[in-house]
Amino acid sequence: MNQSLPRLTQARAPLTQSITATNEAGDQETVSIPAERSLTVYVDKREIVTLMTLGVNPELLVLGYLLNQKLVTSSGDIESITVDWDALDEGGAAAVKTRNGIEAVEERTARRVVTTGCGQGSIFGGLLDDLDSIKLPNARLPQAALFEILSLIRQQDTTYKSSGSVHGCALFRVDATSKAATLLHHVEDVGRHNALDTLAGWMSLQATSDVASNEMVLYTTGRLTSEMVIKSAQMGVPFVISRSGITQMGFDVATRLDLGTIGRALNQRYLCYTGAGKIER
Amino acid sequence: MNQSLPRLTQARAPLTQSITATNEAGDQETVSIPAERSLTVYVDKREIVTLMTLGVNPELLVLGYLLNQKLVTSSGDIESITVDWDALDEGGAAAVKTRNGIEAVEERTARRVVTTGCGQGSIFGGLLDDLDSIKLPNARLPQAALFEILSLIRQQDTTYKSSGSVHGCALFRVDATSKAATLLHHVEDVGRHNALDTLAGWMSLQATSDVASNEMVLYTTGRLTSEMVIKSAQMGVPFVISRSGITQMGFDVATRLDLGTIGRALNQRYLCYTGAGKIER
Repeated sequence: MNQSLPRLTQARAPLTQSITATNEAGDQETVSIPAERSLTVYVDKREIVTLMTLGVNPELLVLGYLLNQKLVTSSGDIESITVDWDALDEGGAAAVKTRNGIEAVEERTARRVVTTGCGQGSIFGGLLDDLDSIKLPNARLPQAALFEILSLIRQQDTTYKSSGSVHGCALFRVDATSKAATLLHHVEDVGRHNALDTLAGWMSLQATSDVASNEMVLYTTGRLTSEMVIKSAQMGVPFVISRSGITQMGFDVATRLDLGTIGRALNQRYLCYTGAGKIER
Repeated sequence: MNQSLPRLTQARAPLTQSITATNEAGDQETVSIPAERSLTVYVDKREIVTLMTLGVNPELLVLGYLLNQKLVTSSGDIESITVDWDALDEGGAAAVKTRNGIEAVEERTARRVVTTGCGQGSIFGGLLDDLDSIKLPNARLPQAALFEILSLIRQQDTTYKSSGSVHGCALFRVDATSKAATLLHHVEDVGRHNALDTLAGWMSLQATSDVASNEMVLYTTGRLTSEMVIKSAQMGVPFVISRSGITQMGFDVATRLDLGTIGRALNQRYLCYTGAGKIER
């Protein structure tokens, strides 16, 4: 496998916009709202998908999207990702150049599963079929590290705090010896799946030793749906923490994968839905 | 146009499930979580999409989905929708029989826009292109009716209250003379777009006089993204109220459509982002 890292642009665009709103008293208030822009993805000049995104790390989003959709197997499959926010009349474009093309790309992007999320997420067919091939590391999570993660999340300076209406995702490492939690990467997006895909993109660029998956913990502001659990498992991350709750398929899939799910997590409180035996109290 | 109503099954399935979770003290708690099941939609025996849904009104969901994706233009195009939750190993199936087929169905379900939501919603291409053909009724919304809507929403007995992790949507009529607000239909789903599609399906079955669109107001627990605004406009509903905020594309599209958007709406408070001049104080 080619281990070279892909060349990525670093396209930037404003993350928030100020607008004037009118409140119940008839007074005008200046409020900040999150940006939301379209990014059409072309792989070897073939249009694959249009993502609607806040635009924090568009190159990592595209990389993670292709990985999570299993259209590529590692960042080494990609030569470059070039994002230009002004490329199209209706928004930005991401031009992805692969090293060796994507086999049967037409067929593999044809099946469509419209999934939960708050919207109707699109997972290309076949993801669910691969569930049983996923083998997660046998990991444990000290409760003190869990509380430290929640505290680190609270301290983040976020678009959510200034504008609301975005979802956040973060990847943490919990050191097996010291039990200390370190924030590795935090990302926000209008869609929580975009945020998670961006994390997957980020993770794929790190040295394997830096992201030993038995030490990884994922935090999301979104609900623990089946898609969130599956994507976490695909990244090899054995624990997902959410401030929100879980759905039935999220619970079923996590149970089948033996992945630890922790919801309603805020301050020093939480509910562990699956994998309670892995938490060290 | 054939005005006959489609024949619909009334498939039912449990909306919640009880599971045992472990809290921070190590104690076990029985908690209720929302159901989430897959529903594969076949139109004239052709597989179109798989929706992940709570399962409240699956026939209305499928009907609204086909309408909102513009695959059919009215409920009169459909002869029957038959939902069977046990049809497939992996979930339910909805068999849709149209009266006259869907023209160029292959082509029209091929383009994919993965949109915001909390997930990556799938709007078949072309929806955005049709924006400028939408003409919304010139409506006004008395502030007292807005507050009555928020009060009626608070009083609903919901899956959200028992289990969390679902989104709700409701359609209200505000009588032009008495200014009173009436709840017409309320629906919850794991995905807020499913909830909205279900409302569209419900609306398409009513007599036009009962759903005069200049008196319609939509309420959603979800954010006011571009998709929410577009779908509301497609239903001809000129006001959308949310307890959450708005994104930039939601704001841009609402401005372009002259659709009233009201966010952060709770108790007697709100922020009107677009169409403030239409609110009667």
